[in-house]
Amino acid sequence: MTSVGIDAIEIWTGKLRLDLPNTFAPVKGDDPEKYTKGLGLHNSSMPDVYEDIVTMGANAAKRLMERKGLSPQDIGRIDVATESAFDNSKPVSTYIAGCLEQVFEGDFHHANKGERKFACVAGTQSIDDAYNWIKAGRNRGRAALVIATDTALYARGDPGEATQGAGAVAMLISEDPSVVELSTEQGYGSADETDFLKPNQQFPSVDGKRSMKVYLARMREALEDYESVAGRTHPDDITYIPFHTPFPGMVRKAALLGYRHMTRDTEIEEELAAELGRQPREEDFDSWDAYEEAIRGYMDGLKDTDRYRDWYARTIEPTLTLSGQLGNWYTGSVHLARTSALKTAAETGKGLTGEKLLVGSYGSGAQAEIHAETVQEGWKEEIEALTIDEQMARRYDLSFDEYEQVHDVHNHDKEIDVEEFTQPVGEFVFAGWGRMNERKYEYVD
Amino acid sequence: MTSVGIDAIEIWTGKLRLDLPNTFAPVKGDDPEKYTKGLGLHNSSMPDVYEDIVTMGANAAKRLMERKGLSPQDIGRIDVATESAFDNSKPVSTYIAGCLEQVFEGDFHHANKGERKFACVAGTQSIDDAYNWIKAGRNRGRAALVIATDTALYARGDPGEATQGAGAVAMLISEDPSVVELSTEQGYGSADETDFLKPNQQFPSVDGKRSMKVYLARMREALEDYESVAGRTHPDDITYIPFHTPFPGMVRKAALLGYRHMTRDTEIEEELAAELGRQPREEDFDSWDAYEEAIRGYMDGLKDTDRYRDWYARTIEPTLTLSGQLGNWYTGSVHLARTSALKTAAETGKGLTGEKLLVGSYGSGAQAEIHAETVQEGWKEEIEALTIDEQMARRYDLSFDEYEQVHDVHNHDKEIDVEEFTQPVGEFVFAGWGRMNERKYEYVD
Repeated sequence: MTSVGIDAIEIWTGKLRLDLPNTFAPVKGDDPEKYTKGLGLHNSSMPDVYEDIVTMGANAAKRLMERKGLSPQDIGRIDVATESAFDNSKPVSTYIAGCLEQVFEGDFHHANKGERKFACVAGTQSIDDAYNWIKAGRNRGRAALVIATDTALYARGDPGEATQGAGAVAMLISEDPSVVELSTEQGYGSADETDFLKPNQQFPSVDGKRSMKVYLARMREALEDYESVAGRTHPDDITYIPFHTPFPGMVRKAALLGYRHMTRDTEIEEELAAELGRQPREEDFDSWDAYEEAIRGYMDGLKDTDRYRDWYARTIEPTLTLSGQLGNWYTGSVHLARTSALKTAAETGKGLTGEKLLVGSYGSGAQAEIHAETVQEGWKEEIEALTIDEQMARRYDLSFDEYEQVHDVHNHDKEIDVEEFTQPVGEFVFAGWGRMNERKYEYVD
Repeated sequence: MTSVGIDAIEIWTGKLRLDLPNTFAPVKGDDPEKYTKGLGLHNSSMPDVYEDIVTMGANAAKRLMERKGLSPQDIGRIDVATESAFDNSKPVSTYIAGCLEQVFEGDFHHANKGERKFACVAGTQSIDDAYNWIKAGRNRGRAALVIATDTALYARGDPGEATQGAGAVAMLISEDPSVVELSTEQGYGSADETDFLKPNQQFPSVDGKRSMKVYLARMREALEDYESVAGRTHPDDITYIPFHTPFPGMVRKAALLGYRHMTRDTEIEEELAAELGRQPREEDFDSWDAYEEAIRGYMDGLKDTDRYRDWYARTIEPTLTLSGQLGNWYTGSVHLARTSALKTAAETGKGLTGEKLLVGSYGSGAQAEIHAETVQEGWKEEIEALTIDEQMARRYDLSFDEYEQVHDVHNHDKEIDVEEFTQPVGEFVFAGWGRMNERKYEYVD
């Protein structure tokens, strides 16, 4: 059967940055290493005053379409994933299509547009919808444009404030893709959780401790569910594991848990047994708490073994490079992680065609999804076409006062006027409100 | 290939009603026929104080699962379509799954949960996602639960106030369905329109005139797109055409446009030519305006012909019965229209197995979707199991003052305390807020 997956990726970062160790930490009176080492974050990307989820998404999509030589007629579906929507009825995809129709010949009138919401997992869900649409034989030879776009802002003073970010990842989902083929097999771990939510509010209510626990519990469930259909996973079969990355520190925990799970009953467990003993088994304990305690002890030892450190440096570390410079992009985050890994491989001359990725997406509320991807021949050319390094280098470095102004500009409950920090060139910008309170956009040459 | 479609339908109406001719019209100083004849509406359904999109959706889903003898393990996907969401991150499907897990054995931890938003068309989009998921071979024998749930309220005094409604339609999408099989072929008409939107607001900004024009323009585009893949449609091949029904008057216009389009270049056009002349052709006119004017003239004549009136009474009228008593349910509306038609057939002893429906969904902002459905053998048994007549008859009849109180209770910007009007029995109810401002639910025996 035809292979279906990601044919192209484009990334658009918010054009401002907040330097966490040098700007944020001093004002908060914190040791800079709390951010750089503890969380694993150096900079947060922020949207300039004329940027929002529509402009960032449209700008990423425009560049993708231009690079791939696409016209609107080639696109049968535009799905936007976001948890930063500013309208309860009209989907962001219609605004983005409206922007693109300003600069491309033709229109998207026969493309199905949609919007998906489930915290940070909706980007992956939208890719799945596109995959299924093609596999179901409904695409008439056309591709799907999936755009994950968010302004991940927290209330000022919230513990999450250091993990903010803003940007969009546009992906083209097609038959015979150039970057990765997706597996039919998927695993889900999903439960009704109150860890992070936005009840009629722009900025989230967060229970940080609970959120980390729930992330790990759902990811473990998803991995077990995935293995129930795809068979056992083994660390040696997987080149990279891009996880949803609210901040790299979270992924350190997830990776450790994943490694322990994958190595259970394998030769790796046996080889490590001399150093660590075998993994604790639930049946050997009187209570769940005692078992959990033993597991924690095993993992504490595991994470300091050379074998684990080597594996982590090889399989996980390369997925975190972009996140440390961009912050959390919510729906785009796991897709940055995948890109980060492929980019590292391209830069170090590593061959990847035919290699496997295991992708671990997550959204609070809560749901994890795991699927596999097989890297395709065209991956390197696609990844080398990215301009994210130049975009990151060009970002305006905000002072703390400026950061507060930018935060206020993007606060739906405030109306303040702030001069733009950067000059828009060849991009879509927010151009004010219309008579029905709608946001309007224009293209700036 | 396996047939995929709707296996079961359940409907849950808000437990209150606002009588438009007898309660609403007198206070507004209007002729009751403005509502009953002009709009085609008699009652609006309203949610009691303990109802919302979660309770209505969960109650419809519970009844569906019980009737079909399903346990959570049989469900691989729960998608909710709504434009009445109260959270910008956590999807309604997680709350509904949480409710159902209170009363069913087992859990939905391996089911993919989601939420889709595109005004009133998202219910149909969610059905499509489920269809594609099954056709893509990812369902592992499981079915999808699709729930369209809305509290369609307008600001008081808005012209849309008479078209309000509240309720949920739950549908089971499966292989070898009992009610209807869906066509692979679909047509879309979609454009970036500012006709109806909710920019950071609960109640919509509406341009009513524009919205009606856009509905017709997008529906026509969708029909042409559908015909480009499925071949020409002919009125004699289609038993019912359920349209999205914001109010029955809108469907009168859509039906007339659809009939004219479908009969063009057919023997029906020829037979009507004696009475009306042939349909105007664009190439015979100097300007688009003159052509449009001529088309309007033709349609004015067409709607008074016996042939059209018979067709309308047979094909469209049966789709409108529920809408006139329930109002607009947004995402659920077109699914009420389908149910209404099947219910009329069951009540009049009409055989439907193998018959075709053409379904015209629409969401402002704006997008129309058209696909075909083939009625399956089990349709009658499924439709006869509905309890919507009893539910409608049991609704509490609100005075105008009470209606205003109910409207305020459901207004997110107001906090008022109003006694419930009905007694919940054997259903999920809203039970107050939790510490993170989340809405909480419980089951009442």
